[in-house]
Amino acid sequence: MDTKKIGQQTVRFAAPPSIAGYGNAVGKKEGQGPLASYFDYTGQDDSFSEKSWEKAETAMQKMALNYALEKAGLQPGQLDYIFAGDLLNQCIATSYSLRARNVPFFGLYGACSTMAESMSLGAMLLDGGFGTHIAAMTSSHFCSAERQYRNPLEYGGQKPPTAQWTTTGSGAVILSREGKGPYLTHVTTGKVIDKGITDANNMGAAMAPAAFSTLRAHFRDTGRSPSFYDLIVTGDLGSLGKEIVLDFFAQDGIKLKNYDDCGVLLFDPQRQDVHAGASGCGCSAVVLTGYLLRQMALGKLKNLLFCGTGALHSPTATMQGESIPGICHAVAITTQSQEGS
Amino acid sequence: MDTKKIGQQTVRFAAPPSIAGYGNAVGKKEGQGPLASYFDYTGQDDSFSEKSWEKAETAMQKMALNYALEKAGLQPGQLDYIFAGDLLNQCIATSYSLRARNVPFFGLYGACSTMAESMSLGAMLLDGGFGTHIAAMTSSHFCSAERQYRNPLEYGGQKPPTAQWTTTGSGAVILSREGKGPYLTHVTTGKVIDKGITDANNMGAAMAPAAFSTLRAHFRDTGRSPSFYDLIVTGDLGSLGKEIVLDFFAQDGIKLKNYDDCGVLLFDPQRQDVHAGASGCGCSAVVLTGYLLRQMALGKLKNLLFCGTGALHSPTATMQGESIPGICHAVAITTQSQEGS
Repeated sequence: MDTKKIGQQTVRFAAPPSIAGYGNAVGKKEGQGPLASYFDYTGQDDSFSEKSWEKAETAMQKMALNYALEKAGLQPGQLDYIFAGDLLNQCIATSYSLRARNVPFFGLYGACSTMAESMSLGAMLLDGGFGTHIAAMTSSHFCSAERQYRNPLEYGGQKPPTAQWTTTGSGAVILSREGKGPYLTHVTTGKVIDKGITDANNMGAAMAPAAFSTLRAHFRDTGRSPSFYDLIVTGDLGSLGKEIVLDFFAQDGIKLKNYDDCGVLLFDPQRQDVHAGASGCGCSAVVLTGYLLRQMALGKLKNLLFCGTGALHSPTATMQGESIPGICHAVAITTQSQEGS
Repeated sequence: MDTKKIGQQTVRFAAPPSIAGYGNAVGKKEGQGPLASYFDYTGQDDSFSEKSWEKAETAMQKMALNYALEKAGLQPGQLDYIFAGDLLNQCIATSYSLRARNVPFFGLYGACSTMAESMSLGAMLLDGGFGTHIAAMTSSHFCSAERQYRNPLEYGGQKPPTAQWTTTGSGAVILSREGKGPYLTHVTTGKVIDKGITDANNMGAAMAPAAFSTLRAHFRDTGRSPSFYDLIVTGDLGSLGKEIVLDFFAQDGIKLKNYDDCGVLLFDPQRQDVHAGASGCGCSAVVLTGYLLRQMALGKLKNLLFCGTGALHSPTATMQGESIPGICHAVAITTQSQEGS
């Protein structure tokens, strides 16, 4: 039977959905990094005028979606669906940001792969004929994540060099069934990959095998070589995880060029003391909706492979001696015209 | 532009996906209730031979999916995707049950609406042409949920009469692009609804407004009256939430007949001391894959409206004084032939 699947993990869209708008909001530290000028809103103290870090994260999501809707020229009521999730237990940044939106909602948990997961599913629903406009969104907040996954800030915990800095930020994308691009042409969906990493302070190593697995599946399924893309970007592997991905490809005899990681791009390691780089659902979300899609709009990037990477890490499971599974979802984005494709 | 949307929240499938298999595993208490004879596997002590409650929940998921695959006559490698999630922080019952499956995976968080959410998305992807077989799955475990959401069992906490008993169980459904039914014909996707309930021991009241909202949207969008269905069933509102839904409809002048709730069906309140009934992702999952789909196979049920209901409850948000939002997704299932529809 004919389907849009090509290979085991990839689909090619019959009518590639278009990105109609994108927006973001970030925290103070993100606004002091090398991508500072690309963000829609930079908070002054990471509280976003709210009384808890969790509520601050909700506030960022609301802002990111508002910016994305505004750029798309849409009202919330014109959205057929919202796909969203976040890192907090029960994804509360998302639930509370959407309770006044009055839009059909599918909740996701993909850890830091959520931006790519939400875009994957949104694009599949549009290509499948289930609507005309769908939003994809996620967020993370350094302070809410520290409290939940590690220690409250007041504890003053020290981090080892392999640790990453959870991004304070939210990004949202509006996908449209018709439009002038950039277009989502392919989605490669990841599997749960667990290579036995048990160090909760080394998420890059936990996620890198999943990134490699999905990237290899993408190239195998599409027949494309890595050089097809102007940029291949993973979500938040950080400097250590990025090196591991390069090593994996080198073992396959492939020198991966045009490859970078959002966790490496977001902060300046010389100035900003973030150890192995940025992490969190918000990392790839704000680098995509801030830097990368603007580069595409300027014509500086034509073909982008955007790979969200998630560590399915749980403090409970880690305390029970479990290793940390990872997952990675890849979305191929192009500025090339898809009219009549 | 033509889409498969009918109204704001509902889609009608062009080629209704078929249920090819379903399976489940439940705990000891569930195996002593009125539906005992319908389950594939009943554990003897809720540990499922594992060393933690979380690992026991993972074990149940593996069993449920194996039973469903077996009944569908499929190997895991024939699945295009798995949609799954659970109640545990970071959905670890799911991550760990799937790490050896080698199947593309989309993680969900819909609280106790997850069975309906996963079936909704699986059916949309099949109808959209993205594969031929997709699994939808979820689970919950009384002991892992008590520890995470309330108190460890050892604490011996007392529950008020409005509280529900989290189901120990997992259910899985295999959806197929072609088949002999039962067929999924419509999906109505819920919005986040929050009517201000702050009592974490009264989930039925928190979810009932979401159930009412989605049911009303379904009848509005499809033009069907409630009497079209042999049975309308909500996920896990329990006896109190069920009464609230009936009251809401009564306010609209509608006497809802043929309506029941999985949280009412699963246990015998006279014998089993479960207060307001069953809850948890596993509740609607095992009632569907145990009792309801078997009734359909026997010809005793022809048209079923299956409504997963989720309380997006977070202990952190409740401690910050927040109310508890709810969500409900509805899936219309029929045994009527859909050939050539």
